Amino acid sequence: MSQRISKDTILLTNAPSILASAAVVGKKEGEGPLARHFDIIYDDTTLGEETWEKSESKMQKSAVEKALEKANLSSSEIQLLFAGDLLNQCISSSYGLRDFDIPFYGLYGACSTMTESLGLASLFADNGLLDYGVAVTSSHFCSAERQFRLPLEYGGQRPPTSQWTVTGSGAAIVGQSGKPPYVRGVTIGKIIDMGIKDINNMGAAMAPAAHNTIKTFLQDTNTRPEDYDLILTGDLGKVGSDLLIDLLKHDQIDLSGVHQDCGKLIYDLEAQDVHAGGSGCGCCASVLCSYILKRIQEGVLHNVLVIATGALMSTTSFQQGESIPGIAHLVYLSDSKGS
Amino acid sequence: MSQRISKDTILLTNAPSILASAAVVGKKEGEGPLARHFDIIYDDTTLGEETWEKSESKMQKSAVEKALEKANLSSSEIQLLFAGDLLNQCISSSYGLRDFDIPFYGLYGACSTMTESLGLASLFADNGLLDYGVAVTSSHFCSAERQFRLPLEYGGQRPPTSQWTVTGSGAAIVGQSGKPPYVRGVTIGKIIDMGIKDINNMGAAMAPAAHNTIKTFLQDTNTRPEDYDLILTGDLGKVGSDLLIDLLKHDQIDLSGVHQDCGKLIYDLEAQDVHAGGSGCGCCASVLCSYILKRIQEGVLHNVLVIATGALMSTTSFQQGESIPGIAHLVYLSDSKGS
Repeated sequence: MSQRISKDTILLTNAPSILASAAVVGKKEGEGPLARHFDIIYDDTTLGEETWEKSESKMQKSAVEKALEKANLSSSEIQLLFAGDLLNQCISSSYGLRDFDIPFYGLYGACSTMTESLGLASLFADNGLLDYGVAVTSSHFCSAERQFRLPLEYGGQRPPTSQWTVTGSGAAIVGQSGKPPYVRGVTIGKIIDMGIKDINNMGAAMAPAAHNTIKTFLQDTNTRPEDYDLILTGDLGKVGSDLLIDLLKHDQIDLSGVHQDCGKLIYDLEAQDVHAGGSGCGCCASVLCSYILKRIQEGVLHNVLVIATGALMSTTSFQQGESIPGIAHLVYLSDSKGS
Repeated sequence: MSQRISKDTILLTNAPSILASAAVVGKKEGEGPLARHFDIIYDDTTLGEETWEKSESKMQKSAVEKALEKANLSSSEIQLLFAGDLLNQCISSSYGLRDFDIPFYGLYGACSTMTESLGLASLFADNGLLDYGVAVTSSHFCSAERQFRLPLEYGGQRPPTSQWTVTGSGAAIVGQSGKPPYVRGVTIGKIIDMGIKDINNMGAAMAPAAHNTIKTFLQDTNTRPEDYDLILTGDLGKVGSDLLIDLLKHDQIDLSGVHQDCGKLIYDLEAQDVHAGGSGCGCCASVLCSYILKRIQEGVLHNVLVIATGALMSTTSFQQGESIPGIAHLVYLSDSKGS
């Protein structure tokens, strides 16, 4: 059973566990600071496929297979897949996962999809709706560039506020096990649109959504940033992270001591020429499903809030002069089940 | 609490109700056989907007507003929106619903999204995760043509197997009320790919998924087609419906007496020049959220299975020579709560 404590926040009283997780990434991510935490690094980011979209599908499949292997589960034991990605009609997920023969809920939350899928899988597990569920998402630099910006061959220039779409996928298997990391809470984000229109500054478009969700969770649970070892956003990057800290300061909430962003952690921002940092569904997915969950499992991190953020625009809405709405879903992870 | 009876099927023991629903449609749908059941018919399918995408967003918003009005609820009483559509990055939903200030889970199940969203909202209600939730989806002929086929101005020819994307949106409000229609079961579909590659024959691509889901539900519940007044598919159209009947015949399941398809009901197939029938997220949504729910409420229909079907392809996957995977989610509706 779960306990809804506000319109936005639900506490998971049975505290389901993340039984296993896997993160698979591309070459550039494998050259970054988190390299040793990833399960697979594909130096050939085509993964042997003829198109980038097929490469991304294969990567998502590979993440699920690796997570199943680590959990010592077969795909026939999984009752539900929660999956999504950035591509039009979410084809990375549908083509990547079609061979599994597992009931499938497709999601679209742009780069917030990792915490949308993990939140849903955890809510299902907490209420006995599944024994084992998988949350998975992915992004690929080359498929995202082609779809959202320009084909790679154009060699387009990128402004300093732009972010680098992570080539990566992360999968987490949720169920009841009595072992950490536990999922203890979920805050479901609202669509927040502050009128940002700069397609090369996604961090700025998404920061207000992260601000809203984090503030809501802290209010709903009557807790403060100091109560957490880490408050981790998905892919705000450098620009969005600074904005988030500023926005929360206006509410007398100081996040600066405990905030990190997956888009800043996954690359060496100076050396790897990624401008404002990493982005994409695969950014939060690959960082969370490797480094972060491992550190909670080891007891190094005790209480962690993960807030993946998504920009709910398309190239069409942008061309039609629309602003960029953001959304941010929060998952509260802990190394203890709580009282 | 819900009771999982198989890998795919969950029975909703509290049987939440659909408190109210609304269906808004365009001019062509308003000239069809179900005209008098729709809440709003927009003779101007631009809805006064400059682009078809914005028209579709407005239509989705309008469906939710109308459903709220009919339920005598304000948007502040709704705890969760489950929404999705066919457009790239699901912009009809995110732009259409951004003003509501309601926690939002974005979904992508192509034309299966109505039963994906209704199933999820019902599961949440059944387990006390929400008091009031909304399931909504939409499609628009003109935005779909531009995105998936050709801009209208090209005047492209359509083969006989092709379907006509419904301009429409349907919204259902789910909660506990003690009044019918009740949601008593959910079967979550798997991705089924039989290798169909004809982009102008979506019915054929989706029929195997409907076959799989219906067969699974009947087996899981140990029931037969005769136990239902109506087994309603979302948008198989004429070609897909015939295929579905045939596929089930091979399993000694005779659906012919109780099967209907929203894509066949919404238009006069002969007179309205829609070839194989209606399609799109808005097809199942607008038929279900008007005519069908009304007939259950009135006690004319007692036990109904609704199976919206989705084709999980994109123009990119098609251009890359991929086949078209399908998915079908089932919702079991009844005018009684059961024992």
